[in-house]
Amino acid sequence: MAVELKDLTKSEENYSQWYNDLVVKAGLAENSAVRGCMVIKPYGYAIWEKMHEVLDGMFKETGHQNAYFPLFIPKSFFSKEANHVEGFAKECAVVTHYRLKNDENGKGIVVDPAARLEEEWIVRPTSETIIWNTYKGWINSYRDLPILCNQWANVVRWEMRTRLFLRTAEFLWQEGHTAHETREEAMEETLKMIKVYQKFAEEWLCLPVIVGHKSPNERFAGAEDTLTIEALMQDGKALQSGTSHFLGQNFAKAFDVKYANREGKLEYVWATSWGVSTRLMGALIMAHSDNNGLVLPPKLAPTQVVIVPIYKGEEQLAAARVKMNEIADALKAKGVRVKVDDRDNVRAGFKFAEYELKGVPVRLALGQRDLANGTIELARRDTLTKETVSQEGLIDYIVNLLDEQQKNIFQKALDYRNSMITKVDTWEEFVEVLNNKGGFISAHWDGTPETEQAIKEATKATIRCIPLDVEPEEGKCIFTGKPSHNRVLFAKSY
Amino acid sequence: MAVELKDLTKSEENYSQWYNDLVVKAGLAENSAVRGCMVIKPYGYAIWEKMHEVLDGMFKETGHQNAYFPLFIPKSFFSKEANHVEGFAKECAVVTHYRLKNDENGKGIVVDPAARLEEEWIVRPTSETIIWNTYKGWINSYRDLPILCNQWANVVRWEMRTRLFLRTAEFLWQEGHTAHETREEAMEETLKMIKVYQKFAEEWLCLPVIVGHKSPNERFAGAEDTLTIEALMQDGKALQSGTSHFLGQNFAKAFDVKYANREGKLEYVWATSWGVSTRLMGALIMAHSDNNGLVLPPKLAPTQVVIVPIYKGEEQLAAARVKMNEIADALKAKGVRVKVDDRDNVRAGFKFAEYELKGVPVRLALGQRDLANGTIELARRDTLTKETVSQEGLIDYIVNLLDEQQKNIFQKALDYRNSMITKVDTWEEFVEVLNNKGGFISAHWDGTPETEQAIKEATKATIRCIPLDVEPEEGKCIFTGKPSHNRVLFAKSY
Repeated sequence: MAVELKDLTKSEENYSQWYNDLVVKAGLAENSAVRGCMVIKPYGYAIWEKMHEVLDGMFKETGHQNAYFPLFIPKSFFSKEANHVEGFAKECAVVTHYRLKNDENGKGIVVDPAARLEEEWIVRPTSETIIWNTYKGWINSYRDLPILCNQWANVVRWEMRTRLFLRTAEFLWQEGHTAHETREEAMEETLKMIKVYQKFAEEWLCLPVIVGHKSPNERFAGAEDTLTIEALMQDGKALQSGTSHFLGQNFAKAFDVKYANREGKLEYVWATSWGVSTRLMGALIMAHSDNNGLVLPPKLAPTQVVIVPIYKGEEQLAAARVKMNEIADALKAKGVRVKVDDRDNVRAGFKFAEYELKGVPVRLALGQRDLANGTIELARRDTLTKETVSQEGLIDYIVNLLDEQQKNIFQKALDYRNSMITKVDTWEEFVEVLNNKGGFISAHWDGTPETEQAIKEATKATIRCIPLDVEPEEGKCIFTGKPSHNRVLFAKSY
Repeated sequence: MAVELKDLTKSEENYSQWYNDLVVKAGLAENSAVRGCMVIKPYGYAIWEKMHEVLDGMFKETGHQNAYFPLFIPKSFFSKEANHVEGFAKECAVVTHYRLKNDENGKGIVVDPAARLEEEWIVRPTSETIIWNTYKGWINSYRDLPILCNQWANVVRWEMRTRLFLRTAEFLWQEGHTAHETREEAMEETLKMIKVYQKFAEEWLCLPVIVGHKSPNERFAGAEDTLTIEALMQDGKALQSGTSHFLGQNFAKAFDVKYANREGKLEYVWATSWGVSTRLMGALIMAHSDNNGLVLPPKLAPTQVVIVPIYKGEEQLAAARVKMNEIADALKAKGVRVKVDDRDNVRAGFKFAEYELKGVPVRLALGQRDLANGTIELARRDTLTKETVSQEGLIDYIVNLLDEQQKNIFQKALDYRNSMITKVDTWEEFVEVLNNKGGFISAHWDGTPETEQAIKEATKATIRCIPLDVEPEEGKCIFTGKPSHNRVLFAKSY
């Protein structure tokens, strides 16, 4: 194994360090000179770009259009929606000045005190306020509705403790903001979009998710209801991977956005918003990877197949090149993203380790015996198994194998997730499972924010969601013993 | 003509107001509540998105990868490259604080003075500094080179007078940043990318451009050479539409980025950067549009063909719908972006005016006589001509017509541009042409920044470029009479 890999921390020793090592060593992202802001490196960005492309297609298929709204939000906008300001306006980047000048004492450049903004600008942590201020000018009557807009953008939230992809001061995301005539239509949209996220997570990221409602404590600041997709990481902690909010008429009221309805009466507009971010990169990495590196679902892998020659001397390399290019061309013709690595300044073993680290789903190694026999060595990343296969029928074999790996990675994550949902009925069991097994705990809760808060303070576990498909079941709250009508899912989370 | 169009200012009356009206009324963009920042509306964003997609493909074909770097840049980074700080660090958005708090006197939320950043952050006006600070960690030896990265991002430059798309405080762009072993390789990259921009401008935007070097006064702050593509708008003013900079070793020296060369010696890395922005939207609009609205090149038009029914009553509309959908499906099968507008609450005349305003290249109107005769009325946007054509062979006819319009729009712009390049040899002629005809003026210049500055102060004209294909020609500077070895292009510009 190559030198670099020796430094990859084992996940069982220190999961958090393993994750960080992986992100950095696989070339996905790194910390920057700006506190809490990351650099997304080309390999990481290529995966995000693919996610962007697929999601964007799904949004357009469901009737949405993209638009772009300002990066800055006047401070006063945040005060207009009472809950929103509590949730978002406090920890943020504030622009106060618009000019620098040369210091009079020759100490470089300094902020020019004369160039102070009359009203400070906040770098957007989310865009409901600026967008609803804009929608006011777009909406007069029911004929202007619905508005189905999405924005791809960067946002900034000040974070004390940051982790690459999972929690960074600046991150990339999309935020959908829709405006509707009726409560029902807005609620339908909220549900439709969380299902789009579920489909994307499961079919592209191989990430099984539980769809449910957030409890009031965990709701988006300014929402009447928040739907979430919750995934489970390999360390037994949950990761909120996407949310869709029913905002009621809160933002319409805050920004005075009314429309003339079909009877000609003025009414406030109904709203939703929904988003996923580069946090999905963190989910993707933590859900599937192992101590050898990334395991990428083939559908998102920037390189799906790599071909490495095993040779001695220039002549053997030349012979291998002809065959490798032939195979690569045939794979490309089938739409497979393939790379031939014929670098002659690194050993094959180094390359093997590198592609394992980078999570390339299929690695082919072509040796001299293979050339003579019409075979090739094939290693799959998900199972780490190797086999020697015939070059005949190789292309179809690989196309099927990519599909099989996509299914296998999902199934493995699903089996793990399902094995990590534990029903408990007492507080002792709850604490025991939480501390020893982890994962989701299905338990009764009395429905009050106070109890949820008390449980969080006692254990760090929170209600991840009340699943959409929850069954009615009478029981007693594990913490207070008060009556409960259904179970909810608790977990420690990222 | 529909009510809304009555308010579209005529370009000959007030070009600037015509432009602004057009951008707003065609639904491309509007001003926001944040000074100098625009909202890019869905129709405008759809055009930008197409530009993004095509350019991104061209960058990847030439070996570039995307990445993402922080929005914020520590203030001290700007001081490291002496010219760069003069050009960029002065007029900018400065983040000084990271928290707001509730005012103790109940006056809403205020900046928390306790949360002052130790070092201010500048919202990036361009990313050379943060990127070269990052590249330092990526580059050790010649094996790490070249680095060919591009970033799609928002940037902010404080502007006193803003105009939608042309000059806004925040705008969207791409910025390529490459690192090379040798001066020659970096210069080759600089030239390669300006040619990519030229190809894109001409083949997609129908925008003929002149490629040339900027004079030292107009160079990018921190560059040794700046290549530009210069386009001509219909009011005779030039618009710089894209630039590619040879940065020499300036940023490598400022951020101490050295590599071990093939002989094992440490050398500074060579750099380029290149960018185009949402300003291209302004160029697209101003170069081709008329008093009826936008004229969009078919390749970039979000809707290429619209079909409008002419009917009385529900029965006739139903009959038209069947035929319209049939035509639309056949067009879609050929990859044409088509829309059927069967809204029954607005008149056909209103729709006609709307699609003219929005620049849809082909408008089909299907009346009852057409249904009987197997014909359809076809109007093309570029020439505003109408004809009745047979439904037989219609699909191929339209596909060819879109291609023809693309060529025609380019040719018209090219003929105009060529008619607006005037050679002058005296100062009197120069002033006369500048004030009465406008356009590019090809004239001799003594090569000094002082003369360029004096001409600018006297006339507002600047040197747009020294064309790449300029012929050597001995002459005398129009301003100073000193000797000159070639002509350069002057113009007033946006």
